Amino acid sequence: MTSRSVDEHVSRVRALLEPALARRTELVAVTAALGRVLADDVHSPLDLPLFRNSQMDGFAVAAASVTDAPVTLPVAVTVAAGDAGPARLEPGTAVRIMTGAPVPEGADAIVPVEDTESTTDAVTVRVARREGEYVRERGSDVRAGTLLLAAGATLTARHLSMFAAVGMVEVPVLRRPRIAVITTGAELVGAGLPLRPGQIYDSNSIALSASLAANGAEVVSVDRSTDDPEQFREILYRAIASADAVITSGGVSMGEFEVVREVLTPLGGWFGHVAMQPGGPQGLAEVDGVPVLNFPGNPVSTLVSFEVFARSELRRAGGLAPVAEERAPLTVALTSAAGKRQFLRGRRVDGGVTLESGPGSHLVAALARADVLIDVPADVTAMEVGDDVRVWQL
Amino acid sequence: MTSRSVDEHVSRVRALLEPALARRTELVAVTAALGRVLADDVHSPLDLPLFRNSQMDGFAVAAASVTDAPVTLPVAVTVAAGDAGPARLEPGTAVRIMTGAPVPEGADAIVPVEDTESTTDAVTVRVARREGEYVRERGSDVRAGTLLLAAGATLTARHLSMFAAVGMVEVPVLRRPRIAVITTGAELVGAGLPLRPGQIYDSNSIALSASLAANGAEVVSVDRSTDDPEQFREILYRAIASADAVITSGGVSMGEFEVVREVLTPLGGWFGHVAMQPGGPQGLAEVDGVPVLNFPGNPVSTLVSFEVFARSELRRAGGLAPVAEERAPLTVALTSAAGKRQFLRGRRVDGGVTLESGPGSHLVAALARADVLIDVPADVTAMEVGDDVRVWQL
Repeated sequence: MTSRSVDEHVSRVRALLEPALARRTELVAVTAALGRVLADDVHSPLDLPLFRNSQMDGFAVAAASVTDAPVTLPVAVTVAAGDAGPARLEPGTAVRIMTGAPVPEGADAIVPVEDTESTTDAVTVRVARREGEYVRERGSDVRAGTLLLAAGATLTARHLSMFAAVGMVEVPVLRRPRIAVITTGAELVGAGLPLRPGQIYDSNSIALSASLAANGAEVVSVDRSTDDPEQFREILYRAIASADAVITSGGVSMGEFEVVREVLTPLGGWFGHVAMQPGGPQGLAEVDGVPVLNFPGNPVSTLVSFEVFARSELRRAGGLAPVAEERAPLTVALTSAAGKRQFLRGRRVDGGVTLESGPGSHLVAALARADVLIDVPADVTAMEVGDDVRVWQL
Repeated sequence: MTSRSVDEHVSRVRALLEPALARRTELVAVTAALGRVLADDVHSPLDLPLFRNSQMDGFAVAAASVTDAPVTLPVAVTVAAGDAGPARLEPGTAVRIMTGAPVPEGADAIVPVEDTESTTDAVTVRVARREGEYVRERGSDVRAGTLLLAAGATLTARHLSMFAAVGMVEVPVLRRPRIAVITTGAELVGAGLPLRPGQIYDSNSIALSASLAANGAEVVSVDRSTDDPEQFREILYRAIASADAVITSGGVSMGEFEVVREVLTPLGGWFGHVAMQPGGPQGLAEVDGVPVLNFPGNPVSTLVSFEVFARSELRRAGGLAPVAEERAPLTVALTSAAGKRQFLRGRRVDGGVTLESGPGSHLVAALARADVLIDVPADVTAMEVGDDVRVWQL
């Protein structure tokens, strides 16, 4: 059986995934764009505010006519927000105006209502105002053509509010990688069904689909196959028709009923051993131009494989921040098998990281408690308390 | 007009929201629970593994029968994953076994296939094995009744994988606060429509609904009302029928067409001024037992009001981590109006925080660029470079 280092398999996976997941843009409604990643620079299509408007409820005046405040001016008209309002302020008069309403030409200041006394047709302004006071000039927030937001930003409520304010209906975002999930194994049973002897519940479906969703991918299908090659083949080709890439679990190792290996080897797939634990048995294929990543079926192996081989590439393709990579001191000693890179389940504690469990690949409860993977190099067989180790943030 | 401090209004809002959003549990499918918050402790309904099974592809043997390896044993049967398998291993024989398949009684070790040579009906085991090697004992991962995860955890793919592995179909999670959004203003126009003079695009709908979604709330409705009291009243009562709380924007200040204040004051709503900028004009009501928060309509005021009055309470009710509250040194000097707490748009830079814009409440572009609010106390009128200031993470 052929064997590879982790780094080599990472490179091989990337060589297939990178072109398949190459950045593509799609337009989505501003109302549906929260958390998506902006694909292109966005420039404002219009001035904001689009028209000179009042920042206060009060009276629009010419600053010059209230220099000698207190002064009483006739009020001809009221302008509410949403009104077109009068084109011009007659000299020596005031216009009653609401917040957000257009300021008529000839007016250059707003007197807030609390600085006035008024009747229906006259207002006494008690304090003088400077030109421009409480007037929002056209384009004072944004000028048409200004860069509003650069490509690559992850869209927040504030970004979407800005896009809506300039009248945008849709926004160009990176298309999410579209990934199909296929779990395999005659022993797998869906949730809610009774188990017969020898059967287990399928946890890899949710493990993979939730991991994909949490890393910006769109899960286009989730299917479960038995060890029947015809069934697997049919599911595989259906998945390939709609997905940018496919991830399978199970059916890759040295046993006799390895449906994934059996179907994909004749199609040019590579199956062999990657020098890591858990997750050693791996496969990689390309079918009709669609990458197919074949993870082993143990639940912990599947999740560790996702972390090591798929997660970073998916996040890169989706424009998301890379996975945090850190180093931390061990708070416990550990031993590790020679020649295999170990990904141990660990947990942050005061002063470093500790082990969450042994190396057994079936310990899903321990993995659920872990918050990091501790990455022990292949040539290291023992580490002491205080030794610096690479950790992957889960 | 009555006036309040920010802290007082925060308390008043909390007094209404806290009981209205009190933690309630709902069951959701494990497949739909990513990112939700666990409402109750979850204990395992079964042992995991549920049956003794093989960790490797190979041969199940009694360790005692391979002590003198190399030794050749007859192979009677093959057990694949998913098979019930034979009840017992005949003494002095081996069973060909695949990863995950049940280990027959009488077998207490697995010899990996790579340590053997075999024909159809016999296997030569080349190395001796210790008892228990490559056998996963029943319950070695999780014992039935064990605490799998404590209430309060935000569910990740690894948690969901564990729940699926123990056969759970649904999981108890905190119900998300159900919030209705109503924006008001005769000047508001929906995205994609042409603007007439005096009109602006409604950005508060998306600003509030996206802010709610980003903080764990479920947005049950988003409506826009003109300044017609009958229309607003109708929308309000429809919203109240399905929401735990309602947030409105606009129609609260001192102008003449203040639909929110006009409708809610007779129903016992409070409308007045909170000593802050932006976001001074505020309202708060309770209609048929449902809290109604009334934010001012300027887009920046609306978003700042959400941050100051709603966000923390929503996150607490939804079981999410509290908003990070920090202090940082200013990298610029600033002045601030006396008597009003200022929430200035700021941005983290090397060595502290800087201002993103002036205090104008219409500067949506500046808010979009900001990543913090700088919280300047009401009694402070000037701050110097290096002064320590409270910042709210946006």
